[in-house]
Amino acid sequence: MNQVGLQLFSIPLEEEIGQGADLAALIVRDFELVDGDVMVVTQKVVSKAEGRVVSVIDDDQESFDALVRSESRRVLRRRGTLSITETHHGFVCANAGIDRSNTNPGTVTLLPADPDRSARRLLHQLQHLTGCRLGVIITDTFGRTWRSGVTDVAIGVAGLRPISDLRGTTDYNGALLQATEICIADEIAGAADLVKRKDGRTPFVLVRGIDSCHLGNGSIEADVVRGYDSDLFR
Amino acid sequence: MNQVGLQLFSIPLEEEIGQGADLAALIVRDFELVDGDVMVVTQKVVSKAEGRVVSVIDDDQESFDALVRSESRRVLRRRGTLSITETHHGFVCANAGIDRSNTNPGTVTLLPADPDRSARRLLHQLQHLTGCRLGVIITDTFGRTWRSGVTDVAIGVAGLRPISDLRGTTDYNGALLQATEICIADEIAGAADLVKRKDGRTPFVLVRGIDSCHLGNGSIEADVVRGYDSDLFR
Repeated sequence: MNQVGLQLFSIPLEEEIGQGADLAALIVRDFELVDGDVMVVTQKVVSKAEGRVVSVIDDDQESFDALVRSESRRVLRRRGTLSITETHHGFVCANAGIDRSNTNPGTVTLLPADPDRSARRLLHQLQHLTGCRLGVIITDTFGRTWRSGVTDVAIGVAGLRPISDLRGTTDYNGALLQATEICIADEIAGAADLVKRKDGRTPFVLVRGIDSCHLGNGSIEADVVRGYDSDLFR
Repeated sequence: MNQVGLQLFSIPLEEEIGQGADLAALIVRDFELVDGDVMVVTQKVVSKAEGRVVSVIDDDQESFDALVRSESRRVLRRRGTLSITETHHGFVCANAGIDRSNTNPGTVTLLPADPDRSARRLLHQLQHLTGCRLGVIITDTFGRTWRSGVTDVAIGVAGLRPISDLRGTTDYNGALLQATEICIADEIAGAADLVKRKDGRTPFVLVRGIDSCHLGNGSIEADVVRGYDSDLFR
């Protein structure tokens, strides 16, 4: 009686990801992809594969702060060792997305220089290997204003329009819908997090059943990062 | 080869929901629930069933604004006809969550007075009808700072701890995880939105496969609404 709308799959990965790792090859080895699948990839392995890893001295907060600033356009808030900054991509997040978890001791990962481009590269490789029409989302874990807890969001996308634009769509009474631009990329990113293991060993999540109307060209930086003029809280 | 982690189901509902509607009866009629299932219910039908519907005069912005203020503690921002307010529950959202879409002409819905309590009531009814251990999440659609597009978030919860607290958990190198309080309730809410139809005809989404470690007592107002002292942006 229950009709499946969406399915999410993850598979623990044994390999350590290093610079130059072939993520597409690992994905097609572990997942049977079909047309319309969306592959969600955690930022950590993309950054490692792209060599976006730098050494840090433990407990040297001053040099860590300098690194955060070098990855940021602007510092919005600061409390203790936590800085909320705006990255060069326009993301507002903790410590410019620089993360010590699930990295080798004494190292941190930086965000990919251009996560949309990282997603496009991976998408092209996956499409070449499988012949399928796919989407790719690269995710990271961000905090939010006003609500406790972090959620995974999309920092890069390819093959998928991140915003579902329902402007002009009517409800069942024929009235125009109000909240009409839905960030499905962030909803997919958060959904994928629900099947991840927190030890970092499930960097890939396959999402099956996304309406194929959402496949197409898109960009997180262009479509989701809110411009200053439309942002009431920047 | 693909191992299912999470499945989401929705079923179009034909009935119009009015005051006093028995949501639990409609759910068990349409879904075969099993232990561990989480039922995601859109705010609109909860508000209608609870009679949280008021008449408004079309194009009378002044009385609409007064209604928004009466549902709010505080107005944070205002642009055109849009007010970003903090509701009496502590939610920060557009127009205090008052919505004209998918309501009868000349009416709007208000948020449930106590969405956690609404979720608890529905949970008890569902558990009574099915004998299953379940979770319930009531969702609404909110905008966010810094990122375009809206996403569905949890405004009420029962039978599920909305925050997955991994503080003290280590990564695969034995280092303490950094982003350790994950708002799985919001991730589930957003995931459920991906299988909804925007005409409002799929108010119920069944989420199957959430780790049973997350079942338990929880509250959005107590656990997710961020206190002023821990909020860097209020």
